[in-house]
Amino acid sequence: MKQKHVGDQTIRFADPPSIIASACVGGKKEGEGPLRGSFDRISRDSYFGQRTWEKAESAMQKQVFSLALEKARLSPDALDYIFAGDLLDQCTASAFSMRDSRVPFFGLYGACSTMAEALSLGAMCIDGGFADTVCALTSSHFCSAERQFRLPLEYGGQRTPTAQWTATAAGAAILSARGCGPYITAVTTGRIRDAGITDAGNMGAAMAPAAYETICAHLRDLDRQPKDYDLIVTGDLGLLGRGVVMDFFLRDGLDVAPYYDDCGMLLYDRDRQDVHAGGSGCGCSASVLCGWLLEGLRSQRWNRLLFCATGALLSPTTTCQGESIPGICHAVCICNEKEG
Amino acid sequence: MKQKHVGDQTIRFADPPSIIASACVGGKKEGEGPLRGSFDRISRDSYFGQRTWEKAESAMQKQVFSLALEKARLSPDALDYIFAGDLLDQCTASAFSMRDSRVPFFGLYGACSTMAEALSLGAMCIDGGFADTVCALTSSHFCSAERQFRLPLEYGGQRTPTAQWTATAAGAAILSARGCGPYITAVTTGRIRDAGITDAGNMGAAMAPAAYETICAHLRDLDRQPKDYDLIVTGDLGLLGRGVVMDFFLRDGLDVAPYYDDCGMLLYDRDRQDVHAGGSGCGCSASVLCGWLLEGLRSQRWNRLLFCATGALLSPTTTCQGESIPGICHAVCICNEKEG
Repeated sequence: MKQKHVGDQTIRFADPPSIIASACVGGKKEGEGPLRGSFDRISRDSYFGQRTWEKAESAMQKQVFSLALEKARLSPDALDYIFAGDLLDQCTASAFSMRDSRVPFFGLYGACSTMAEALSLGAMCIDGGFADTVCALTSSHFCSAERQFRLPLEYGGQRTPTAQWTATAAGAAILSARGCGPYITAVTTGRIRDAGITDAGNMGAAMAPAAYETICAHLRDLDRQPKDYDLIVTGDLGLLGRGVVMDFFLRDGLDVAPYYDDCGMLLYDRDRQDVHAGGSGCGCSASVLCGWLLEGLRSQRWNRLLFCATGALLSPTTTCQGESIPGICHAVCICNEKEG
Repeated sequence: MKQKHVGDQTIRFADPPSIIASACVGGKKEGEGPLRGSFDRISRDSYFGQRTWEKAESAMQKQVFSLALEKARLSPDALDYIFAGDLLDQCTASAFSMRDSRVPFFGLYGACSTMAEALSLGAMCIDGGFADTVCALTSSHFCSAERQFRLPLEYGGQRTPTAQWTATAAGAAILSARGCGPYITAVTTGRIRDAGITDAGNMGAAMAPAAYETICAHLRDLDRQPKDYDLIVTGDLGLLGRGVVMDFFLRDGLDVAPYYDDCGMLLYDRDRQDVHAGGSGCGCSASVLCGWLLEGLRSQRWNRLLFCATGALLSPTTTCQGESIPGICHAVCICNEKEG
C-alpha cells in the first residue's frame, strides 16, 4: 500500500491520466482581459439567456461542459464520473447544471480551490482503475457571488483595494486513462491553514499561507525546487496574496518570481480593468487553466506546470460571527511527459 | 482499465477497505430516540459549549472525530485524508472543525448523501493505493439548518406533516487498508435525478426517485436481488419517501419491505417524538450508520448491508426561484466478508 503516496501529502500516479480536452467560457469583462483569445466562448450577456444570476451560472456551466465534450468528441454517457462544485450556497450551480447529464456525480466544496480538488480526485479515480473518463468542472459568477457573499449589486457598495473581483467564468477538463497529454503526473492535497486573518475583503492574504505550505509540501515530497517547474501558478491570490507567497519564499532564500504567477493576476489587466487586487472565484483559476495554461502546455510554451488552486473556506455567517478565514490549496502537477 | 468498474455505476473493490472504527454523537432529542444506546455521546447542551449554532455543529464534529480516532487508537497524523462536508453554506461546519487537524482535506457537498459520498471516495482512495487510512465525516444540526434553510427558531414556524426533522448528530468512520471488517466491498455512485417536486417541505418525495434508481443500478450492476442483502437502508427519506421507494419496487413486482428501512425512520420514535415524517440531515444517516448499523454488522446481526444515503441538492435560493429539487443517492455495500 501507499506505493503511490510520496512523502506526506503527495501522490505520484503510476499511469498518469491525460487531459484530453478542456474548455472555458467567460463573461464580458473576462472577454476584455489579456486572456480573451484563450476563451472558447465569451458571453456579452451576463444573464446567459436566463432570468437570474444563479441560473445564469448554471447555464454557463452547461455551455462549458458541452464545449469540453465536443472538443473531446465524446457524449456525456462516455463519462464515468463528474467531479464538480461551485461557490453558491449548497453548490447549486453545479447540481442544477448537471442534473440532466445522467452521469454519476460527486459534488465538491473547495471554494476557489475546486478545480484542483476535482482534478486531483478525478485523476485518482482514473489511476486507481475506477474510471476511464471523467470530467472536472467548476464556475463562478460575479453577480451571484456578490449578492451571496457581499452586497446585492444594486447597493453599489464600495470595495476595498485588497478586494478581488469574482470572475464570471467556467472551466471544464476531460480526463482520460488514454490520450497523449498533457498528463496529471502528481497531486498534493492541501491541509486547511488558518492564519488568523479576519478581513473578508482580503482573501489573498488569508489564502497565501495555505498556498505556500502546499507548494512547499509538493516540492519537499518530490524533492524538487521551484526552478524545476516552467511555471508555478496559484489561483487566486491576487496582487496582495501573490506578494505574500513570494515574500515567504524569499524568507527561505528562494526567489520564485521567474517561475511564479497567479491566475487572479493573469485574467485581467489591472491597469485598465477595475478589479482591485485581481480576479478570484472558482471560475477564475479554472478558466485560466482550461484555456491559457493548457494551451501553453499543448504548444510546449511550458512543459511542466504546477497548478495550485486556493480556496477561502469562509461563509458570510462565519464572518459575521467574527471568525478568521481558513484557507486551503491543492496542487496539481501537469506535464507534457508522463514521467514529468 | 475499468477492471474494477462493474456495469454502469458500480465499483467492486479489488481489496475492500475496512471500517476499523466509527463514532457518533447526538443531541438531546436523538438521545431520547430508540437508538440512544448506539450513540457514543449524547449532548444535552444543544450549543455543545459554544455561543452559536454553527460553532456548536463544528464542536460536535470535532467530538465525533476525536472519538472515532480514539476507538481506532490513532492520532490525526495517522490519517492520509479527511473526506468531509455538511449542510451549512460553504460547508463551514467541516472546514472549521477540521482546520486544526493538519490532515489533507477533501471538502464535499452531497447534502444528506455526504456520508455515502465520503465513504465511496475514501474507499476508492484506499483501494486505488493512494492511502492507508482515511476518515469520512459529516454532521447536521437542527438549529443551524432550520435558520439557514427555513426559519429562525424564534419564529416558531409551523411545519407541514411531510417535513422531516434535521438531526443534531454527527458520524465519523475510519477506513483502513488493513483491518478485519466490516468491509466496503462495492459502491454505486448516483446520478442526479430531478423528479420535478418543488415542495421543499417534502424532500422525501424529491429524493425517493434517486434512491430507487441508485438501488436498482447497484442490484443490476452486481446482478443481485434485494433479498441478497440483510438490510437495504436509505437515509433519509422519512415516512413518505420510504413509502415511495417501496411503491416503486412493488411496481416492479418486488416486495422489499422485509429487507428495507430508512435511517430517518430509525433514529426517532415518530409516535412519541414530534418529528413529523422522520429524521433528515447529513448527521442522521451518518450517525445511524456509525452507531447502530455498524454495531449490527460487528455483532453479525447482519452480514451484508446496503447503505444508500440520499441528498436533496436544493438551496433556499433555488426554492425561492421556483426551481424543482434535484435528488441524489450514493450506495455503499458494507459486509462482514471481503467477498461480500
